[in-house]
Amino acid sequence: MIVVLKQNSDKERVERLMQHFTDMGLRINYSEGEDTTILGLMGDTTRLDEGDIMAYDVVERVQRVTEPFKAVNRKFHPEDTIIEVAGRKIGAGYFNVMAGPCSVENEAQIVECAERVKAAGASFLRGGAFKPRTSPYSFQGLEAEGLKLLLEAKRQTGLPIVTEIMSEKHLDLFADVDIIQLGARNMQNFMLLKELGRCNKPILLKRGLSATMEEFLMAAEYIFAGGNKQVILCERGIRTFEKMIRNNLDLSAVPLVKMFSHLPIIIDPSHAAGRRDMVQPLSRAAIAAGADGLIIEAHNDPKHALCDGAQSLDLDQFDHVMSDIKRRAEFEGRVMMP
Amino acid sequence: MIVVLKQNSDKERVERLMQHFTDMGLRINYSEGEDTTILGLMGDTTRLDEGDIMAYDVVERVQRVTEPFKAVNRKFHPEDTIIEVAGRKIGAGYFNVMAGPCSVENEAQIVECAERVKAAGASFLRGGAFKPRTSPYSFQGLEAEGLKLLLEAKRQTGLPIVTEIMSEKHLDLFADVDIIQLGARNMQNFMLLKELGRCNKPILLKRGLSATMEEFLMAAEYIFAGGNKQVILCERGIRTFEKMIRNNLDLSAVPLVKMFSHLPIIIDPSHAAGRRDMVQPLSRAAIAAGADGLIIEAHNDPKHALCDGAQSLDLDQFDHVMSDIKRRAEFEGRVMMP
Amino acid sequence: MIVVLKQNSDKERVERLMQHFTDMGLRINYSEGEDTTILGLMGDTTRLDEGDIMAYDVVERVQRVTEPFKAVNRKFHPEDTIIEVAGRKIGAGYFNVMAGPCSVENEAQIVECAERVKAAGASFLRGGAFKPRTSPYSFQGLEAEGLKLLLEAKRQTGLPIVTEIMSEKHLDLFADVDIIQLGARNMQNFMLLKELGRCNKPILLKRGLSATMEEFLMAAEYIFAGGNKQVILCERGIRTFEKMIRNNLDLSAVPLVKMFSHLPIIIDPSHAAGRRDMVQPLSRAAIAAGADGLIIEAHNDPKHALCDGAQSLDLDQFDHVMSDIKRRAEFEGRVMMP
Amino acid sequence: MIVVLKQNSDKERVERLMQHFTDMGLRINYSEGEDTTILGLMGDTTRLDEGDIMAYDVVERVQRVTEPFKAVNRKFHPEDTIIEVAGRKIGAGYFNVMAGPCSVENEAQIVECAERVKAAGASFLRGGAFKPRTSPYSFQGLEAEGLKLLLEAKRQTGLPIVTEIMSEKHLDLFADVDIIQLGARNMQNFMLLKELGRCNKPILLKRGLSATMEEFLMAAEYIFAGGNKQVILCERGIRTFEKMIRNNLDLSAVPLVKMFSHLPIIIDPSHAAGRRDMVQPLSRAAIAAGADGLIIEAHNDPKHALCDGAQSLDLDQFDHVMSDIKRRAEFEGRVMMP
Repeated sequence: MIVVLKQNSDKERVERLMQHFTDMGLRINYSEGEDTTILGLMGDTTRLDEGDIMAYDVVERVQRVTEPFKAVNRKFHPEDTIIEVAGRKIGAGYFNVMAGPCSVENEAQIVECAERVKAAGASFLRGGAFKPRTSPYSFQGLEAEGLKLLLEAKRQTGLPIVTEIMSEKHLDLFADVDIIQLGARNMQNFMLLKELGRCNKPILLKRGLSATMEEFLMAAEYIFAGGNKQVILCERGIRTFEKMIRNNLDLSAVPLVKMFSHLPIIIDPSHAAGRRDMVQPLSRAAIAAGADGLIIEAHNDPKHALCDGAQSLDLDQFDHVMSDIKRRAEFEGRVMMP
Repeated sequence: MIVVLKQNSDKERVERLMQHFTDMGLRINYSEGEDTTILGLMGDTTRLDEGDIMAYDVVERVQRVTEPFKAVNRKFHPEDTIIEVAGRKIGAGYFNVMAGPCSVENEAQIVECAERVKAAGASFLRGGAFKPRTSPYSFQGLEAEGLKLLLEAKRQTGLPIVTEIMSEKHLDLFADVDIIQLGARNMQNFMLLKELGRCNKPILLKRGLSATMEEFLMAAEYIFAGGNKQVILCERGIRTFEKMIRNNLDLSAVPLVKMFSHLPIIIDPSHAAGRRDMVQPLSRAAIAAGADGLIIEAHNDPKHALCDGAQSLDLDQFDHVMSDIKRRAEFEGRVMMP
Repeated sequence: MIVVLKQNSDKERVERLMQHFTDMGLRINYSEGEDTTILGLMGDTTRLDEGDIMAYDVVERVQRVTEPFKAVNRKFHPEDTIIEVAGRKIGAGYFNVMAGPCSVENEAQIVECAERVKAAGASFLRGGAFKPRTSPYSFQGLEAEGLKLLLEAKRQTGLPIVTEIMSEKHLDLFADVDIIQLGARNMQNFMLLKELGRCNKPILLKRGLSATMEEFLMAAEYIFAGGNKQVILCERGIRTFEKMIRNNLDLSAVPLVKMFSHLPIIIDPSHAAGRRDMVQPLSRAAIAAGADGLIIEAHNDPKHALCDGAQSLDLDQFDHVMSDIKRRAEFEGRVMMP
Repeated sequence: MIVVLKQNSDKERVERLMQHFTDMGLRINYSEGEDTTILGLMGDTTRLDEGDIMAYDVVERVQRVTEPFKAVNRKFHPEDTIIEVAGRKIGAGYFNVMAGPCSVENEAQIVECAERVKAAGASFLRGGAFKPRTSPYSFQGLEAEGLKLLLEAKRQTGLPIVTEIMSEKHLDLFADVDIIQLGARNMQNFMLLKELGRCNKPILLKRGLSATMEEFLMAAEYIFAGGNKQVILCERGIRTFEKMIRNNLDLSAVPLVKMFSHLPIIIDPSHAAGRRDMVQPLSRAAIAAGADGLIIEAHNDPKHALCDGAQSLDLDQFDHVMSDIKRRAEFEGRVMMP
């Protein structure tokens, strides 16, 4: 951590600040230039807060020179993390496709989806029981009933399931879910992150719409800090000024995660653009960029979907996209699950 | 709602789509141009979801022409809402300053802050018991103990309190809190919004860091939809590309809220910039733009604050800023509370 | 174009507005709802300006339903444009790699670069003679002398050249340049766009750092409007909140350009991230997304480059990346130039 | 400048890098921690480029700790700059309102506007002769003829004029213009900045739509570097995600300019929001935030304006806004010009 001091600062106050750092067990490199005096802090700076230091009158600026995340940092854990769930491996060359409808609507629908996406090669069934909607007047999901239908589809097809949690109060309901998804709008719901850190299940952590990579990895760090090391990152599009699409898939996230972290990262091409015709080109780019998997919306009859139909492939389109995905994963030398 | 059809769409499919809208009780204006055919939907379109309509193959684009928020819309409620709490009025020309430390640290600290900000003219005491922090290794607040200390400060000074909730599980703990604050990162924590909609307390709803005004007002609409009509909006800075400040106070939010909604809006100049030296100029601009109040961080000893010290005024600086605020509120013809 | 009228507008004023549109040769569809009255304008609306219409007191909102670009719109020109220059084809399945140093520094440097990138398989030599720099104190390029050196490298190797223009005054100097590049910061330098529209050379048009796709295509439309139909689009990273990289490559731009326009689009993975270690993964993603080519910085000794060294590959690294590119272009069924 | 080295870097290469800095006349503070080694560079670092340094293999990260702008930096020029033009003072407590139509259309129009805005209290006449338009099919201004009409209005009323330049080629035409405006889209048209640096006229420099404050001040530094020290900064709204307004006025720019620079800053509330009903509240906020003036669009008949009518006040509305501005400038202790 670099602390830039204000010009002509009072000596005594600077000494008090330096004492404060020494008391915290940090070593200080003091460097005096013409216009600028700098303190370089060495030791464990993850507990330091830039704001706290800025509170000292003599401080002009504070800059981190090391990442604030530790447990999820590749520097301290060089090998790729592999997450094993329901017989599937995620990460480190293993490639997974999670597919299914936006919302669970009824048993026939979710079972048909599960059968078809399994036949096409998906390794997980996705589907929303609790749905975050920007309008209180929109369909909010079947909730607990939706979870039951997902589990029924799992029973009939053997496909493990991934579905979104929206409240700490619902954690018990998710006991038989294989992967718990945390949605983009809850990426910094710190209380929920803490609860998920205490549970013993893989978490699919979606990146917030305007979150930086550091904030994204710090959210994963929250889950690790609670003891849960099974985190799968998911990039699902960020907010940009573009009007032709809903969100803008950030494919730089893939190589950045690979450089800075050991966690697997999968891509959601459906929610990113919000356009069905973008799913295939974005999936192709994601595979080539090195993603560990894809999560794709596929529906048995998208024009009557109760939510987000614009981005859903129908099951025939999914078959077509899936065979393209397999060919590309093979070209990249990935091992397709299941 | 405007539905633009794809060129050369199949007649029968278009008819099926039109039937769908008619079945929902909407009237349709059909308009055929050279390159473009448009359906204009009339009636109550708040229940319609753009994504659902986009799912139809024949649809190229969907555009709303009316706002999706209703209960908080000034169109349907032309008079300013006034919220009365603990003998103070908020909105419609009544001006409130809420002040206090970032975090509650101990009784002496919070009581001293309360006494001093009350003496300076603040009408509410603010202070964090539950603290949202980007790092799991940072101080997370005194939690339930912090709430007790706030209530003790209220008992000693008579100042009503405003403090942040971070989980639905804690709602009972907030029974004696005067105004419950919902933080920026939870603006779209829909489960918590629903719970707050069911409670009978004024809510200070902070705008998300990258939320549009429409999303901000839709979050308020969630609370209204649950039956709670006591919502105070709070603009606290949005994320922009600027590096000299932490967030960028969006003062356009004030006149826009006044045009599109009947709810009061207050400004947080402390969190916005994250710099103590910006609090006064931003407060001045906020008052002139028509804000209904300010929420300002003030601390008895900012250099030892356990969080966010960079933006906190000390109590002497607060006195100074407060006397400037009073002079300006008077110039604008506002009625200072208490 | 959709014109939403204000509630309870004066009849006579609305009629005057409608007369104005009729006078412009437009047809009007008038549609009256409970809360909202809408005029749908049909005919050639590209000359209409939203701002002009908003000036009428009775107007609440104006929304385009068709794209404002025409000449570059795929709707009116369904086949891919192929640009032929110096025996190379660009677009429609033909794949080009343009490579070379950020800045031309001296003859030995630029000739060595040209020879090596040609040997590796590049079809164009890139290199900056006029350099846009954010600081007036940074190296500004060799200017006219740099152009001479580029042409010398072309003479010795046969590689056609692409280089950036920064002023209308310099157009004569670019007479022998094969492709003129217009930089991101000049994407809306309308006077320069007009001049380039009048010249008879292919233009490599770089997208502005915060430009929407519509603005990007409208810049190309400016060049077309002057009579020059040889425009190659280039995505080079947009500004986002991410701090780990300089800019954020927007790969959605590739499928969007393919849907909405007939022009070729190439990708600049070097400037996008500003990190050498991102060039390969971003190149891979670009090819898979359907890009028509890449423009890559490669330098004979990057640590002494006079500008932007952070993102430059050295010539050995370029060889390595280039062989990966060829293998992938082949997988995609593209025809590598030359 | 702080240079963070990669872990376990080759000693010899680090020494070569350090030699390179020593050769440039810089002093180095070497600081070795457990995980991180840092070089602190002292001396004149304005000529250093982060990218150049990043090119060295041993470098992980580079961070500036001092601003890259020098001539416009308040640190080296603590007093406010006052610009004197046509008998008016701009900056340091002197308050100017520049007003007039978006485009010059004909003599009657521009003369009427000039007379009325002068009578209302404006100190400069603004009006566009060369107009930057996003569409090549929109009205592009009367160009040279428009400049003549502006000068005619000046002759008849005595009001000095401010108008936009779009090309270096036009500089001669601007010989009698009092203040030359450089538009937002040309803020980083470096060739034009250099030309304006060589001319002897006050420049109204508009901030780019997505420019940071540092980039804004570096554009001013370009003009200073050429020898011209008469720069007036102008904030005119930045691009954010907000859809209810065209751009979002960044009022933090005012106190930031006052802290970091000695140059005057004025606010354009008309272009910022693009809505007539936002001009008054934004003007009020700007004055309170400490702006040195306003530039406001006012038109004799906005509904027939040839461009940007949505944001123009008519002359009666301008009278009304202007009297409010005068009352507020007086409250702030500013000296209204003329």
